[in-house]
Amino acid sequence: MPSSSDNNNEYILGIDGGGSKTRAVIVDANNNIIGTGLSGPANPLHGFEQAINSITESAELAIKDANLSGVNLSDLVAGVGLAGVNLPVLFEKMSNWQHPFGKMFLATDLLIACLGAHDGSDGAVMITGTGSCGFSYVDGHPYTLGGHGFPHGDKGSGAWFGFQAANHVLMSLDGLKEKSVINEKLLALLDVTDSVEVVEMIAGKPAAYYARMANLVFDAAEEGDTVAKAIVAEGAGYISGVARQLATQKPPRISLIGGLTPRLMPWLDEDIKDSLAEPINPPEIGSVLFAQQQLALL
Amino acid sequence: MPSSSDNNNEYILGIDGGGSKTRAVIVDANNNIIGTGLSGPANPLHGFEQAINSITESAELAIKDANLSGVNLSDLVAGVGLAGVNLPVLFEKMSNWQHPFGKMFLATDLLIACLGAHDGSDGAVMITGTGSCGFSYVDGHPYTLGGHGFPHGDKGSGAWFGFQAANHVLMSLDGLKEKSVINEKLLALLDVTDSVEVVEMIAGKPAAYYARMANLVFDAAEEGDTVAKAIVAEGAGYISGVARQLATQKPPRISLIGGLTPRLMPWLDEDIKDSLAEPINPPEIGSVLFAQQQLALL
Repeated sequence: MPSSSDNNNEYILGIDGGGSKTRAVIVDANNNIIGTGLSGPANPLHGFEQAINSITESAELAIKDANLSGVNLSDLVAGVGLAGVNLPVLFEKMSNWQHPFGKMFLATDLLIACLGAHDGSDGAVMITGTGSCGFSYVDGHPYTLGGHGFPHGDKGSGAWFGFQAANHVLMSLDGLKEKSVINEKLLALLDVTDSVEVVEMIAGKPAAYYARMANLVFDAAEEGDTVAKAIVAEGAGYISGVARQLATQKPPRISLIGGLTPRLMPWLDEDIKDSLAEPINPPEIGSVLFAQQQLALL
Repeated sequence: MPSSSDNNNEYILGIDGGGSKTRAVIVDANNNIIGTGLSGPANPLHGFEQAINSITESAELAIKDANLSGVNLSDLVAGVGLAGVNLPVLFEKMSNWQHPFGKMFLATDLLIACLGAHDGSDGAVMITGTGSCGFSYVDGHPYTLGGHGFPHGDKGSGAWFGFQAANHVLMSLDGLKEKSVINEKLLALLDVTDSVEVVEMIAGKPAAYYARMANLVFDAAEEGDTVAKAIVAEGAGYISGVARQLATQKPPRISLIGGLTPRLMPWLDEDIKDSLAEPINPPEIGSVLFAQQQLALL
């Protein structure tokens, strides 16, 4: 992190709230991380009360972790990055929250991930975890690519890979597609033996359930399985395409982040792989940087 | 229909109950259709009460249509073919229904469709409407192929074609896939202009919603659109594959039935197209034939 140029001596809280968990971090006036906290989901699309509870809880845990006796939530300036607040109605709802912090600056999860990865500077990120999305922030201009959700979008995401795997296994068990190493791995993971049982397990399940099946596709591909290699090539090809499209925005740096990064990275096009920069900080530090930037504008 | 060999003089009621509507037909002792009725959904998976209400209502409407004054439901022998009762627990639940008919014989929607298409004889059907499924009935042996549901299965169905269309449009609007005639047609159908609005319309929608978008894919393909032709080729290729797989069961006849039949037929492989037989009766007549066959066994 760059050292902060303003000399306020407040503690800054950074929040990264997503569909499954919320991370909090507190930095002191010297930008040292002094405490962290972890709580449940904070996507207001899936519940406003749960979101504000998770944010508050993770912040309280971070205060406790920092041993800051006598410091309350109201002593913190909070940078809060959340999934879901790309929707204007949810951004407004969260903004109107009677929050417990001294100040609160609200941003999308994409912006804080990007600020974190590039240490507060302009850049672009591709996020591939349960979902997938591309985002760039250059000269104050945010640009979002993909991220339309599962199952209709989010190609190249964990959920997408799991969905392709389940799809192939069902057709393969019907004798309508060739057998694949994916079959045995998926049946073992779900602990089932036939297609009726597979359908019972997967029907109507959310993205996170399908994302559990992503690793086995990469495992099978790395073992040389033709079907798995084709699925991985298609998903990774899409992410390479996202990188090329983001590059048209001229970001100084592009990073690949999210839980699927180590699996996906080896399969990207060579020129894309060479062009990627290591992310510098995690998203919750991006929230701290966002709060500091907003404070500096006050 | 073949003339009935038994000389009971009861009226036979045939029911075809699916996810969106229920058709009833009454035939007299000479196998003449004397009345029909139409009601709402009757898939017990989506509600037992609704299913039995739709069955009863459609039957009452058929009695009325037949001008059978003095004839009650208890005077009818009912053949009832239903979606959902392929699941043993639902078959049992429906079997235990204290139904209002003189007798009731219960079968899956697949079996009655197959019996109807082949006038009570052995054969196979491919059903492509909102969903897709293959089924054969040869020497008393039922065999089901595909039909795993949407979106994880049901390739080549109306819902699948609509899903592929939406998928392409979202990637195309992101600049990650080539433009297609599908784009303008889909945006016009949904009455929206950008990908955010497309997602708002389609996210979380059931199969029937996506199936509405199937025709525009075929329209675009018939106009020569490359993207649409590739989608149609993939979906039709799957259905041709289902036909080949069903043929291994040696059915005397194979028919393609369901709402997507006229759109899909021209795109099937030539040898498959040549091998298909016209369906002889609709599924509700299949239910009548099933009831007559079961009566003959008593």
